[in-house]
Amino acid sequence: MKKVSFRPAVADDLPGIVALLADDDLGSQREDSSMPLNQAYIASFAALESDPNQLLAVVENENLLLGCLQITFVPGLSRLGMLRGQIESVRVAAEHRAEGLGRTMFEWAIDECRRRGCGLVQLTTDKSRTDALPFYEALGFTASHEGMKLSL
Amino acid sequence: MKKVSFRPAVADDLPGIVALLADDDLGSQREDSSMPLNQAYIASFAALESDPNQLLAVVENENLLLGCLQITFVPGLSRLGMLRGQIESVRVAAEHRAEGLGRTMFEWAIDECRRRGCGLVQLTTDKSRTDALPFYEALGFTASHEGMKLSL
Repeated sequence: MKKVSFRPAVADDLPGIVALLADDDLGSQREDSSMPLNQAYIASFAALESDPNQLLAVVENENLLLGCLQITFVPGLSRLGMLRGQIESVRVAAEHRAEGLGRTMFEWAIDECRRRGCGLVQLTTDKSRTDALPFYEALGFTASHEGMKLSL
Repeated sequence: MKKVSFRPAVADDLPGIVALLADDDLGSQREDSSMPLNQAYIASFAALESDPNQLLAVVENENLLLGCLQITFVPGLSRLGMLRGQIESVRVAAEHRAEGLGRTMFEWAIDECRRRGCGLVQLTTDKSRTDALPFYEALGFTASHEGMKLSL
């Protein structure tokens, strides 16, 4: 495992992040990695950047983009006003999979949630990603909930 | 079904909302509905109020609190920069259950997500709430994901 570093994403990372999102079994059907970049990504990045409860992070090695993830910090009254950290859109560059980078990224994200005062970290994983469940369980997650989605 | 109205929660609603959260099989073990109100709730309400991507709503009938719910609007790059609406902490007052109010509240929340431009509505439900799954499926949700939690 090479030495990697994490930082918040900036606008110049967008084409690389979108390419990561598209390079995935499910993402390839959902994303548009053509250039110039689809304006929808630029607008949603602006919304992410202006919200202090969103952290879109990239992981890199000597300026080479290796992966990305998003943490949403969700304040709420439930569980004695517990702040939650929610992890989404985690992607590792295809040529760097199976190197343990995914685990490193989740460990970093969980630490970041702890640092921000979260009492719970949550995520949902598509049931069609059959290899994902043991990966998350090894990180300490429990599949205690059904994750339900409704497309509008 | 009586005529009900929805509005964003205000500080004066807090004791009533906390009582709703506590009046639940799981919530009774997690919440503190004693007065004066636990400061943790007051702090988390301030965090909710200051975040324009959070909507804590109450439903009432002639000033009587019937229920509450929280919607978190989650911007993100995935799925062509799709905004998601996430519904949490839905509670109906014990004496008004089985009157169809839960369904009315979810329909309102889904409409609110649509109005704000969400392409997807999501929630997680504890697998121990066995009666919840058919309820959500009747609203159009699909249990496509595992909902994973990690306590810190």
